[in-house]
Amino acid sequence: MTPKGKLREDMLTIGRNARTAADALRSIPGEQRSAGISAMARHLRVSTPAILAANAKDVAAATRLVDRLRLDGSRVEAMAASLDIIAALPDHIGEEMARWTPPSGLDISRIRTPIGVIGMIYESRPNVTADAAALCLRSANVVILRPGSEAFASCQAIDAALQAGLAEAGLPPHVVQLVPTPDRDAVGLLLEGLDGAIELIIPRGGAPLVERVTRESRVPTLGHLEGLCHTYVHASADPAMAVEIVANAKMRRTSVCGATETLLIDRAVAPSLLPRIAKALGECELRGDDEARAIVPMAQATEADWSTEYLAPILAVRTVAGLDEAIAHIRRYGTGHTEAIIAADEAAALTFLTQVDAAIVIHNASTQFADGREFGFGGEIGIATGKLHARGPVGPDQLTSFKYVVRGGGRARP
Amino acid sequence: MTPKGKLREDMLTIGRNARTAADALRSIPGEQRSAGISAMARHLRVSTPAILAANAKDVAAATRLVDRLRLDGSRVEAMAASLDIIAALPDHIGEEMARWTPPSGLDISRIRTPIGVIGMIYESRPNVTADAAALCLRSANVVILRPGSEAFASCQAIDAALQAGLAEAGLPPHVVQLVPTPDRDAVGLLLEGLDGAIELIIPRGGAPLVERVTRESRVPTLGHLEGLCHTYVHASADPAMAVEIVANAKMRRTSVCGATETLLIDRAVAPSLLPRIAKALGECELRGDDEARAIVPMAQATEADWSTEYLAPILAVRTVAGLDEAIAHIRRYGTGHTEAIIAADEAAALTFLTQVDAAIVIHNASTQFADGREFGFGGEIGIATGKLHARGPVGPDQLTSFKYVVRGGGRARP
Repeated sequence: MTPKGKLREDMLTIGRNARTAADALRSIPGEQRSAGISAMARHLRVSTPAILAANAKDVAAATRLVDRLRLDGSRVEAMAASLDIIAALPDHIGEEMARWTPPSGLDISRIRTPIGVIGMIYESRPNVTADAAALCLRSANVVILRPGSEAFASCQAIDAALQAGLAEAGLPPHVVQLVPTPDRDAVGLLLEGLDGAIELIIPRGGAPLVERVTRESRVPTLGHLEGLCHTYVHASADPAMAVEIVANAKMRRTSVCGATETLLIDRAVAPSLLPRIAKALGECELRGDDEARAIVPMAQATEADWSTEYLAPILAVRTVAGLDEAIAHIRRYGTGHTEAIIAADEAAALTFLTQVDAAIVIHNASTQFADGREFGFGGEIGIATGKLHARGPVGPDQLTSFKYVVRGGGRARP
Repeated sequence: MTPKGKLREDMLTIGRNARTAADALRSIPGEQRSAGISAMARHLRVSTPAILAANAKDVAAATRLVDRLRLDGSRVEAMAASLDIIAALPDHIGEEMARWTPPSGLDISRIRTPIGVIGMIYESRPNVTADAAALCLRSANVVILRPGSEAFASCQAIDAALQAGLAEAGLPPHVVQLVPTPDRDAVGLLLEGLDGAIELIIPRGGAPLVERVTRESRVPTLGHLEGLCHTYVHASADPAMAVEIVANAKMRRTSVCGATETLLIDRAVAPSLLPRIAKALGECELRGDDEARAIVPMAQATEADWSTEYLAPILAVRTVAGLDEAIAHIRRYGTGHTEAIIAADEAAALTFLTQVDAAIVIHNASTQFADGREFGFGGEIGIATGKLHARGPVGPDQLTSFKYVVRGGGRARP
């Protein structure tokens, strides 16, 4: 058999084993899945030396993104602590989401179910291996993990700990499967769905990865392409609040998708507020329109600035006449991720919250709250910017589907 | 400009107009949308002569599926009556689906929103034009309609009535747009998404259409490929109930996707029940395994029969040892649409309902209940067999998304 043929066979076997494990999970209670996640956390802690040794090999071979790749004792502990939180979440699989009797007399209930088999394609952050495994198991899904080749040794060591946890809790080993090779052809095979075995692909990483996966996948995908988030300071904004929130929304961490990239500010308050905001932003580079530049010296913003997700300490600044112009700007340049208004005027805020079409719309808080843990989901596998299935932070409940259970009392349809 | 270039420009204009209309719909109240649907129904009734005249042209030119295409006064009235039902449904857009405060202190609510712009690609049933327009408007979505070329004149006449209704209710005309040409290239352009304007494509028609759309679409799709539904008669089934339900599940209408295609029957009760079931099925052709054929004379079922959606008066019959074998058969051959068990034994029924992974699982009723109206949804745009976003009958509520509305009281993220 050719190497390609062999890889294909191996991947199809992974797919079949995943399906069998997904069926088995249907009769395994939530407490046992919780116990599995707790055991995975314990084995991660115990395996810290092995994980760090494997990680050292990855780091030695890496030429880029080394800081995302590098683990230390506290990062492994954070990974385990994250699993403890997920293990303690209530189990929602099997819950009755709704129940009703239509005129036909049927007793219909909508019951939460797992999706089934999820393929996770990610890059160099090793912690995604543990997070994705735990979030999927929380919601009774089986996961097939394909990390970036840079992180391969680290992820194999983490997977060994996860497998030990699964075994300890008496769970089927194929509930979590790491693709056994960094061969890039494995990604293509996952995107073909492994003969119908994979029901959802979640890409997590930079825009090029997510774009490729979204474009090529034969399986539905859930991911986010861009987080070009705006914070709009309305004329009615409390000045101190505006200054604090804008600085936080931009600078708390500039590399996260919920970081604000463009500040929109009402013309009426720009002269008084913009200097204070600029000061609070500290080292941040500003690129503004003419009116903003007349108030605070800054570089000239070009058209490209309105549509660039910097993920860096750079902020585009645009003055607007008011609410309508701000909403129009966001409709044109926003990516449907997170959009915020700072305003004391409740009516203006309500208009903004209603008219802006984004996964998360915020009144008087930082866009950096766009995060599953901050939302109380216990964790997230990513943030979805599409409008189908899930939107915003994707936690365990967003990794579920449902079925209609119909009790008919012997009814034939008239 | 070449004809292809012209079509492309025209379609992109439709896309832009759709987006503008979708934004406009965000501030139009539910009552006005209801009034629009009612007005569309009135104008359909008034336009009956024009619709029938246009339909006569389509029918005269048609070479196939003429019965699906043909309209008469009562079919137009049924179309209008269907709109009246949809107009009377409660409006769920803007409703608070959940609200909570996580430890971060944010006040978070999940608010139901429209999806936005939906592309509907269908075949020769003219009534889909009115149904899709009304279901989309009920949920504040904009729809772009592309019917099959055979039905084009009929759909244009129906669209004229819908437009008159929209105008009467003061709604933007581009809320419902019929692609202005039967040119097949228009389908390809819709599947490319019209420059990001289209957010969901719903194919409705035969398997070849749905397969093509699902395969080629650059936009998420919601549809169903096959309804290979099973009815399983457990040994504990009430005999009279089993006979009545199996006959109804197969023969009430054999062309619908919820029709049962395979009967599974426990070995223990096959000798007594199968003759009665065969009699109740009347004209239906049976194709069975050896044990079934030893009880009732019938053709030999081949492997292909277990995986064929007949949509015709043909029933595959297989005897099974019991519940586990029935579930295993459904896992292997089912298409995730609708699966039923007839059983007096509640524990057996519960196992079936839990273990079978399908959009609809039924205890003691006909699989032909798989229908949005029967479910109390007021109508359906189709039945989804995927597990993402919507599953089962797709009514107005399934044509919605949501957003998280966050009120932060001035919080920056720590």
